[in-house]
Amino acid sequence: MKNITLLGGTGSIGEQTVEVIEQLPEYRLFAFAFGKRVDKALGLVERLKPEWIVAGDRQAKEEIEKKISYQAKVSYGMEALCEVASNDQTDIVVNALLGSIGLQPTLDAIRSRKQIAFANKETLVTAGHLVMAEAKKYGVDLLPVDSEHAAIHQCLRGEKRDQLNRLIVTASGGSFRDYSRDELVGVKKEDALKHPNWDMGAKITIDSATMMNKGLEVIEAHWLFQVPYNKIDVIMHKESVIHSMVEFNDLSVMAQLGTPDMRIPIQYALTYPNRTDFSLSEGLDLLKFRELHFNELSFERFPCLRMAYEAGKAGGSAPTVLNAANEVAVQLFLDDQIIFLEIEQLIEEALQKHQVIEQPDLESILAVDQDTRKRILSVYS
Amino acid sequence: MKNITLLGGTGSIGEQTVEVIEQLPEYRLFAFAFGKRVDKALGLVERLKPEWIVAGDRQAKEEIEKKISYQAKVSYGMEALCEVASNDQTDIVVNALLGSIGLQPTLDAIRSRKQIAFANKETLVTAGHLVMAEAKKYGVDLLPVDSEHAAIHQCLRGEKRDQLNRLIVTASGGSFRDYSRDELVGVKKEDALKHPNWDMGAKITIDSATMMNKGLEVIEAHWLFQVPYNKIDVIMHKESVIHSMVEFNDLSVMAQLGTPDMRIPIQYALTYPNRTDFSLSEGLDLLKFRELHFNELSFERFPCLRMAYEAGKAGGSAPTVLNAANEVAVQLFLDDQIIFLEIEQLIEEALQKHQVIEQPDLESILAVDQDTRKRILSVYS
Repeated sequence: MKNITLLGGTGSIGEQTVEVIEQLPEYRLFAFAFGKRVDKALGLVERLKPEWIVAGDRQAKEEIEKKISYQAKVSYGMEALCEVASNDQTDIVVNALLGSIGLQPTLDAIRSRKQIAFANKETLVTAGHLVMAEAKKYGVDLLPVDSEHAAIHQCLRGEKRDQLNRLIVTASGGSFRDYSRDELVGVKKEDALKHPNWDMGAKITIDSATMMNKGLEVIEAHWLFQVPYNKIDVIMHKESVIHSMVEFNDLSVMAQLGTPDMRIPIQYALTYPNRTDFSLSEGLDLLKFRELHFNELSFERFPCLRMAYEAGKAGGSAPTVLNAANEVAVQLFLDDQIIFLEIEQLIEEALQKHQVIEQPDLESILAVDQDTRKRILSVYS
Repeated sequence: MKNITLLGGTGSIGEQTVEVIEQLPEYRLFAFAFGKRVDKALGLVERLKPEWIVAGDRQAKEEIEKKISYQAKVSYGMEALCEVASNDQTDIVVNALLGSIGLQPTLDAIRSRKQIAFANKETLVTAGHLVMAEAKKYGVDLLPVDSEHAAIHQCLRGEKRDQLNRLIVTASGGSFRDYSRDELVGVKKEDALKHPNWDMGAKITIDSATMMNKGLEVIEAHWLFQVPYNKIDVIMHKESVIHSMVEFNDLSVMAQLGTPDMRIPIQYALTYPNRTDFSLSEGLDLLKFRELHFNELSFERFPCLRMAYEAGKAGGSAPTVLNAANEVAVQLFLDDQIIFLEIEQLIEEALQKHQVIEQPDLESILAVDQDTRKRILSVYS
């Protein structure tokens, strides 16, 4: 029996992780961490009855403590989050936290040599050099849950890393794939939240519409697979059937394909290096698609993708600014404070104003992160 | 330095193998075997100067002996073919022989524990149970050179065989992909020989047009990867970009993609488990294709595919009859003795008349093979 600690349990990945664990007889949920959504959390913990629950704050802690039907330890806050992530009883940490809040628990899980199913891309974007240095030091493999990175991970099975030529990350194009720049001016939040292929949380769905999600994934891929940016290509593939590809030095290209069901890469990360039966959806039927499409992704049309590559190549604290500015800007958009095209403007301004710090330590990163957020928010509060 | 023995050197795979070896500094051609095409053979051996040449018969042996510009041992016939395949100096045997003539040298190479790059599908079709039993006994991995099987081999890297759900073999559709059954009546040899994607020999190009090539590949895949026929699907994919796929028990599908250049799988089989730089062609550019298509392959439209599945499932000597009848029928078509649609008729008749022998030994197989050929040829000579 393997004990799973799920961080970020009430998000889309968290909920789907619960569904996967329910189907895996050899796995149990040991600890469940969530932020503020008590009722959502309650429904999930009642299904798997983890013995330890961590809430985001005291209020949520007290509320869920009152409501659960069984005996459990309930804690709250960052310290408790790091405690469950590194607890002796934990075998696998699923990090499905949203945003750079996942950094500290990730480092603690690495230092405790946990198997880590990783769905918290902002952490790698913000502090990839620190996280990967620790992962290397402790010999921990971060198992990606994102469908693109899980695809690349599978393409690299049984292969030698030094025989890799380039990564080819596919992008569905998001909600506004077929819109011109002019047509983006008047788009509504409701439309931005309609992703054509994947059922995901609000933040990542907006990130898909701006293509920042793909940009963050490029930076994440850079760190996870230790590949330079000029060897990471992004290609538009609107059906999301090919989840990503790897070209090797002999020009052979390996690809992983599947239905757009996040529970498959979640299960992969939990059961790796094994694969186990997956019964929650139907297999891929290429005859239903009949055609798969591939197109260029233009930096002019999708400036967020350009900025991500630029920030990634600049390195140091630049990706931290990119990510922090993006998180704040998306929230402002979701709160109806800015229009869609202002998301990219706010990020561009933040990057331009920032003086890059080389090899920033954890403290500098957190300071840059906070500073970036404050500067942007000061205008809107 | 690794010594390569190339059997079937003047065919399309043989010639491309020479091109690959020329690019690989750590590999040299030790022995070169061909049939009757002395001038073709001469051009190839002068490029790589193998120390041992094996001709198909005495006449070809004497002719090439006179013409070569350097000192080499020259032999001829089946015994010599088996000798070079199992010779102590040979590290790798490339079996690019055409037809079931490759059976005995394959068995000898296996028993001498050679690394075998395998492009002689008729041998596996005809005597898969014997070949694979020997391969298992001697712990020899047959490394497929066919693009489809090389793709499957790559999809299985780092994977566990018992976690495999099904193979998905792709088919370009061949020269007459878009023809109806009625339109096939009047097709000409010249048109049958025009393959849309691959530059190959005449026999395999006709086999592609009848779809028997895919049928033989299904039987070959059954033996190579030990997968039952009901877990091998064939799908039409006219661009030949995805060379084949494997679905695993978690519904994840791995695929290998590339440009249609046989030299890539040839190099793969020579250098396995390594991959080495390939400089003979450009890498795959999906943006040049923009669309990949997938369609059903109908047994009504392609009866040769149906017959191959039936013969494969019937087992025993049935695939031997399928293959022998096909080899003869294709030759009759190439000799303008029968029309295109008579190929499938001759095979169907041969299968219907045959009483299947279970678990045939080598002698029975060779007898059935000869008998099938004779019966058909007796009508046409």
